[in-house]
Amino acid sequence: MAAETRQRQVDRSRETRRKLMTATVECLVERGWAGTTTTLVAERAGVSRGAQLHHFRTRGELVAAAVEHVGVQSAHELRERAAAFDSSADRTNAVVELIANFFASDLFTAALELWVAARTDPELKRLVVPLEARVGRECHRIAVELLGADESRPGVREAVQATLDLARGLALANQLTDDSRRRGRIVRQWATMLDAALRAGEPGTGDQP
Amino acid sequence: MAAETRQRQVDRSRETRRKLMTATVECLVERGWAGTTTTLVAERAGVSRGAQLHHFRTRGELVAAAVEHVGVQSAHELRERAAAFDSSADRTNAVVELIANFFASDLFTAALELWVAARTDPELKRLVVPLEARVGRECHRIAVELLGADESRPGVREAVQATLDLARGLALANQLTDDSRRRGRIVRQWATMLDAALRAGEPGTGDQP
Repeated sequence: MAAETRQRQVDRSRETRRKLMTATVECLVERGWAGTTTTLVAERAGVSRGAQLHHFRTRGELVAAAVEHVGVQSAHELRERAAAFDSSADRTNAVVELIANFFASDLFTAALELWVAARTDPELKRLVVPLEARVGRECHRIAVELLGADESRPGVREAVQATLDLARGLALANQLTDDSRRRGRIVRQWATMLDAALRAGEPGTGDQP
Repeated sequence: MAAETRQRQVDRSRETRRKLMTATVECLVERGWAGTTTTLVAERAGVSRGAQLHHFRTRGELVAAAVEHVGVQSAHELRERAAAFDSSADRTNAVVELIANFFASDLFTAALELWVAARTDPELKRLVVPLEARVGRECHRIAVELLGADESRPGVREAVQATLDLARGLALANQLTDDSRRRGRIVRQWATMLDAALRAGEPGTGDQP
């Protein structure tokens, strides 16, 4: 019985956390960093201020946790969607498109608000720098996996990293206006260039279509 | 004599404007959008509030004008520096490096503060959307010129645009920590791939080193 009660508490606590995370990202997207107050997030999540404070002491901790939580969820989603692709010649194009569209999403917008605020806020920066490193490594790992890239070949590691930096740059260009048509054309061209780089020196496949 | 007085007034007005522009960008870099008040900028520029208001009615107008003014100046600088390059095989690498380092500068940081603020501020957004389009076109024009790119060939236009989006993505990765070493490696790999794309189908030179 005691174990059951404890489990219910754990579930409720996890659910509270999840609600806070989602509300925080929504709030960042809608109102930016300046408009994302802990009061507003608690209200939006339907969570009491006490419960919120039990989970997160400051706005910085709340926002950093939200960006990481939603990021991890989205990474799972990305992997699942990519699992549906076959390994045809168009796989590189499909993966680059998936990554570029993943970045051009609300999660990136929320992260951007956090990153920019952290630049001029030393306490926030202390939280965000290690988060940036973790997110960067995780994105790289996923991209290598989805592209089936062999990083032992010269230039491949950098080409994969360039793909992620390009995706971030394209996401930035999507903040004020819908840039999806231009993005689509650039993604196709980059996928062609990337595919050639990934296949360069691959035994027996280098010249295949 | 009247003409001379008028000329002095024009010069003084231009100088006031220039001081305000520089102070605004410095202020954005140091304190972000939230900390860039018109009072602080006027103080920093050593310009009276009256003179400032004569030039710019709102903070949004001041900041948008500053980002555009400093952007135009920097574009001139970029063209001058690139003029010193010869047209050797390394030119593409030198140009991509120049562009990537240009974006990873204080001007980009200032622009980023403005862009992010504009996303959730409709009045500011109204100023920044056309500014973004102008800046985007000008950057593209300069990149085509510096790279000597022939946009009539398939994929070349998109490869040049991708270079600028990559530069923006790399600049973003440079906001919280110094990312210059990683950037250097990615730029070299990108330049190799871009050079191949620019030369693809070029009569008689496609296979040259």
